[in-house]
Amino acid sequence: MNTEKFVIGIDLGSLSGRIIIASVNDGRIVANHSKDYKHGIMTDTFIDGSRLGRDYNLTVPKDYLDVIGELIPKAIKSAGIHKKDIIGIGVDATSYTMITTDKIGKPLCEYEEFKYRPQAYGKLWKHLGALEDSKLFTKLAIETNQPFMWRFGNSISGEWMAPKVMETFRKDREVFDRATYFTDLSDWIVWMLTGNRIQNSGTAANKALWNEKDGYPSFDFLDVIDPALRQKMLASLESPIMPYGERAGYLKKQMADSLGLCENTPVAVGIIDAYAAFPPLGLGKPKEALMVLGTSAAVCLLNDEPTKVEGMCGIAKNSMYPGLYGYDTGQNCVGDLIKWFLENMIPGEYEDAAKKQDMTIYDYLKEKALIRKPWLNDLVILDWWRGNRSILCNLDLSGAILGLRMNTLPEDIYTGIILGIACGTRTIIDEFEKHGKLEKIVASGGISSKNPFFMQMYANILNRPIMASQVSDTPALGAAIYAAVAAGKKNGGYQSLDEAKQYMQLKESNFITYYPEKEHEEDYERIYKKYSYYHDLVGRNPYIDDTL
Amino acid sequence: MNTEKFVIGIDLGSLSGRIIIASVNDGRIVANHSKDYKHGIMTDTFIDGSRLGRDYNLTVPKDYLDVIGELIPKAIKSAGIHKKDIIGIGVDATSYTMITTDKIGKPLCEYEEFKYRPQAYGKLWKHLGALEDSKLFTKLAIETNQPFMWRFGNSISGEWMAPKVMETFRKDREVFDRATYFTDLSDWIVWMLTGNRIQNSGTAANKALWNEKDGYPSFDFLDVIDPALRQKMLASLESPIMPYGERAGYLKKQMADSLGLCENTPVAVGIIDAYAAFPPLGLGKPKEALMVLGTSAAVCLLNDEPTKVEGMCGIAKNSMYPGLYGYDTGQNCVGDLIKWFLENMIPGEYEDAAKKQDMTIYDYLKEKALIRKPWLNDLVILDWWRGNRSILCNLDLSGAILGLRMNTLPEDIYTGIILGIACGTRTIIDEFEKHGKLEKIVASGGISSKNPFFMQMYANILNRPIMASQVSDTPALGAAIYAAVAAGKKNGGYQSLDEAKQYMQLKESNFITYYPEKEHEEDYERIYKKYSYYHDLVGRNPYIDDTL
Repeated sequence: MNTEKFVIGIDLGSLSGRIIIASVNDGRIVANHSKDYKHGIMTDTFIDGSRLGRDYNLTVPKDYLDVIGELIPKAIKSAGIHKKDIIGIGVDATSYTMITTDKIGKPLCEYEEFKYRPQAYGKLWKHLGALEDSKLFTKLAIETNQPFMWRFGNSISGEWMAPKVMETFRKDREVFDRATYFTDLSDWIVWMLTGNRIQNSGTAANKALWNEKDGYPSFDFLDVIDPALRQKMLASLESPIMPYGERAGYLKKQMADSLGLCENTPVAVGIIDAYAAFPPLGLGKPKEALMVLGTSAAVCLLNDEPTKVEGMCGIAKNSMYPGLYGYDTGQNCVGDLIKWFLENMIPGEYEDAAKKQDMTIYDYLKEKALIRKPWLNDLVILDWWRGNRSILCNLDLSGAILGLRMNTLPEDIYTGIILGIACGTRTIIDEFEKHGKLEKIVASGGISSKNPFFMQMYANILNRPIMASQVSDTPALGAAIYAAVAAGKKNGGYQSLDEAKQYMQLKESNFITYYPEKEHEEDYERIYKKYSYYHDLVGRNPYIDDTL
Repeated sequence: MNTEKFVIGIDLGSLSGRIIIASVNDGRIVANHSKDYKHGIMTDTFIDGSRLGRDYNLTVPKDYLDVIGELIPKAIKSAGIHKKDIIGIGVDATSYTMITTDKIGKPLCEYEEFKYRPQAYGKLWKHLGALEDSKLFTKLAIETNQPFMWRFGNSISGEWMAPKVMETFRKDREVFDRATYFTDLSDWIVWMLTGNRIQNSGTAANKALWNEKDGYPSFDFLDVIDPALRQKMLASLESPIMPYGERAGYLKKQMADSLGLCENTPVAVGIIDAYAAFPPLGLGKPKEALMVLGTSAAVCLLNDEPTKVEGMCGIAKNSMYPGLYGYDTGQNCVGDLIKWFLENMIPGEYEDAAKKQDMTIYDYLKEKALIRKPWLNDLVILDWWRGNRSILCNLDLSGAILGLRMNTLPEDIYTGIILGIACGTRTIIDEFEKHGKLEKIVASGGISSKNPFFMQMYANILNRPIMASQVSDTPALGAAIYAAVAAGKKNGGYQSLDEAKQYMQLKESNFITYYPEKEHEEDYERIYKKYSYYHDLVGRNPYIDDTL
């Protein structure tokens, strides 16, 4: 009997987890459930009610397993399928979200003695506590001419593994000493599901400085701080590194029982959430680009060779898509910047008018923005509210609004923010295209389906068609596609990623293509040119306070 | 019988006129009335309901006389005094507010054939229609090496006489041809009161390019446009130029009758409103400074010699205060910028909370701003919403907010705006003090009495005590003091300005002195240093769009 087979995609975002069940036949989603994590993100307030510093973004690792444990049985039930027909599991998650554990993967925060120690908790990708450590790491690596530095724009982000480990070392030596492994979230989930502690090649390459040719750095330049740092870091990095599309292992009996799945169901290698979107969006060729436009904008470029491109935060083979070089960069404040604007800069009068007309504030602003002819906008907004992690590689930079006049209105600033973000992306793309033209740009993430005004401005500034996905659960579907590949042909899955995509990727009807408004092309080019001037003037000449 | 004598101060602002009656004995104000002009300022909508361009700020000259005609009898009545005891009249007004008239001073707009011609109306000081003309004037003057240009920072403002006349010439040749005289508002009022067409030395020097040594320029460099321009301009400038403190003439019978005053009451030379504030504020020595903090900030400095100081928009003897050199400069967007901020950048939530707590939005913002420790504010706000007319002399510049981060709150921007304005003033003062330290700074204008938070930040950034006047009608009292001098000793007035001030200037109880918070001195110096860096980076390197 040839019944329909299914795969599970587990997608662990910043605030909530999602489980989808997709048909292997056609990628059709038959169940889709999400749930907020019990403890959310701990920023101001710690688990015991005490105050945390402003730079914290902590999580409770058990929350992730709890969401999976609750939603998988629920999804199976709502899909009305049998566990025997589930042939694979894939996991994508935010990264680098560090889980600090003992030898068997138990998070240190679950030990009574570390219950009230912030460093024993999960550190979310956007946790900022390691900013100081990232500067020290960068300084030491540059001083010792580390050959990996060019791949990261000569700047190591505080979001990545090494600075996060250094932060633990610096702030809580006892937690550091007690820890056996530091693991990125998707790898930790795969470890818990299968018992295999392996590393996905994307995290290894783009968050932990590995590449296929040279392996990991020795990290011996950290010995000036303490040799213990290098030793513990390398212990975590010793396990096998596997590229996307491989099978990490099989579901352990105990997990299978608690999730209501079959023992030994194949589990795919964990994957960084943004990169999971390539297969469902039909991407996977050199010179193709994926923009994940959400709270931040991940700009992910594929190429068949490694080239020095300014402003990339990671260039490595197999880091995003099997067989290709991934170029990782992006803008770290996009949806969040619009949210900041809405919270801090919208007059009450606007909110009231939107409500009165029964419009969302987005629609209301769009309407007002269009009256003002966006192509005549003369603001320059540098979207560096969280610094710049692309061309300028400087997280100390801050946001700027230039061009303000007495007749500037809130809707001009709204348009200006969107144009500024688009100009930021264009700056990245122009840099990449010095080495060859991009063939295709696909946008996903919340903004691509929810904010048509944003997408139109984006197409205008990038001056090329942008395919915008209208489906919000792309990474989860990507995880599911990888699960079908991990399952393999003989188990009812596929023998290759290409084959899986052919059947399971999103159909054309799931996209809207935004074309640049040719009648205003000159105006938008003018806007970009002015932006570029201030991008360099302000961005390359930051004020240095020599009194600090 | 030695009854108490009184003087009238007429103060013509942008939106309303004010009449005060002050005692000559002690400066005590016994009547104080103000009234909005009937037609206000015509910006969008012209007299006939048609649309004006965005750059217009027109007025109806008759409105000024109507306010005077209504308020003087009312003030005499409310003071309960006899017209015989009114020994002098002084007039101060905005400048350069151009009244275009025939030979006897009748505004052209009062002729039926010019009723619907914008150029035939009053052009308020901040009328922007002559921006293009000011650029052309500046270009021609620089090309022909005009020796007066250094006194004006090598840039002629569109607010001044010559560009305003050129605008009329360019936009409505018939109005230009029909006009006999172009006259600044205070001089026009004095002309109407006395029949004498004289020029006050302040307007002549700072708005029409005259100085005591060289007289007026020949304006022959304008002949490349049309010799008619020069001819007509010089016709207006031929009348006597008289310094402040002189008597312009005596009240005509017809005016005396209609105002309920005695014929031949002495009338003082007209005065620019900001400069009228020197005597009542007790200022009048070299190295003293007056800051008029209102919609804009006039920075008026007195000195006993002319020196090249960068960023001054006028340096001439007798231009502000008799016998001294006045240095004129300032910031053209101060109260207006705060108003812009309140209208465009304050979330509804803030307005609601202020209302709920029964606080003004200023007090609410102050309270929130203080929680954030203003000395730690790390924004740099360049207050050039209307360009820069001081150090950088570039009206094409625009405002900027730098240093924005995800944790920036509206109250930080509020503080940042105030600090930015203060840093702008400090930049001017630092430049002036290269030639000698200022002895005293007195602030007047609405902000000095109504916004203690602003004044405290101002003192912190200027890093010196600021005497802030708590009286809002200082220019009107100044006009009255000048009236007492114009009346002269034998008529019950004074023989000199010094003598008049001794009796009539504001008492110490009318001032609050703000001292810099010494415990945060280093922080405020740090803020100023950073501001200075971006002032130069952004202000001296403006983007030039070569496609326009």
